[in-house]
Amino acid sequence: MDTIIFRTATLADLEAIVSLLADDALGALRETVASPPAACYVSAFQAIAADANQRLVVAADGDVIVGTLQLSFIPGIARRGAWRGQIEAVRIAASHRSAGVGQRLFEWAMAACRARGCQLLQLTTDKGRPDAHRFYEKLGFVASHEGYKLAL
Amino acid sequence: MDTIIFRTATLADLEAIVSLLADDALGALRETVASPPAACYVSAFQAIAADANQRLVVAADGDVIVGTLQLSFIPGIARRGAWRGQIEAVRIAASHRSAGVGQRLFEWAMAACRARGCQLLQLTTDKGRPDAHRFYEKLGFVASHEGYKLAL
Repeated sequence: MDTIIFRTATLADLEAIVSLLADDALGALRETVASPPAACYVSAFQAIAADANQRLVVAADGDVIVGTLQLSFIPGIARRGAWRGQIEAVRIAASHRSAGVGQRLFEWAMAACRARGCQLLQLTTDKGRPDAHRFYEKLGFVASHEGYKLAL
Repeated sequence: MDTIIFRTATLADLEAIVSLLADDALGALRETVASPPAACYVSAFQAIAADANQRLVVAADGDVIVGTLQLSFIPGIARRGAWRGQIEAVRIAASHRSAGVGQRLFEWAMAACRARGCQLLQLTTDKGRPDAHRFYEKLGFVASHEGYKLAL
């Protein structure tokens, strides 16, 4: 635990990030794990890296990636021009769950959002993930909104 | 109705956008209406305009702004590197509600997201807005997620 650091992901982390996203009941149906990562993932990594308002983050224990999330910093007119932070694609390696890594990763992410002047942090989580709901509520998140999705 | 167009907002639209955001039970508590708009709104407008992945949109009936929303185009690793569209800060002028303007604005926004290669469109809406829920469900949105918020 004490050796884990949180940092912006590099292209060398991408394979491990895809593996984490796939290691999940919902993710397994949606992702393709390969070495090296498929071109679609490399393109996505480059799009994130090219956007100053996106930040792909990993928790690294030495050379091993044990967690990931993506931060988006979103400017907006509402709430007197408040910036909001948004978190997507959260995963903690099965080997490191319930050990406080997720909580430390989120505390780090909240500090990153405050440093960027965000007044609000938001995320949506599938209604079929009750463990995640408990985790977010313990961190102080309030399920005040319905999260709607539409496939295009 | 036939004279309404949908387009990217200009700075000249900002005062009307703030007025629309404030003309709402929740928004009235959060916004400051002034002419010209307060500096916080101008800064926010400039941050949106400077980000190629943000698009502030208005529905205009001649010189009158009758609706607004903000589109965000968000790159991500999950779902094989899918881009997602996100909608925030939706308002239709009281004078134009229930007249199909909202539906046309959303159809326009969906087309804009498809044109940018987004595979998914998402939004959150306060659980205290049942009329909005019916509107989104009629458009095909599914309330599959909990929407969590945390004040920073």
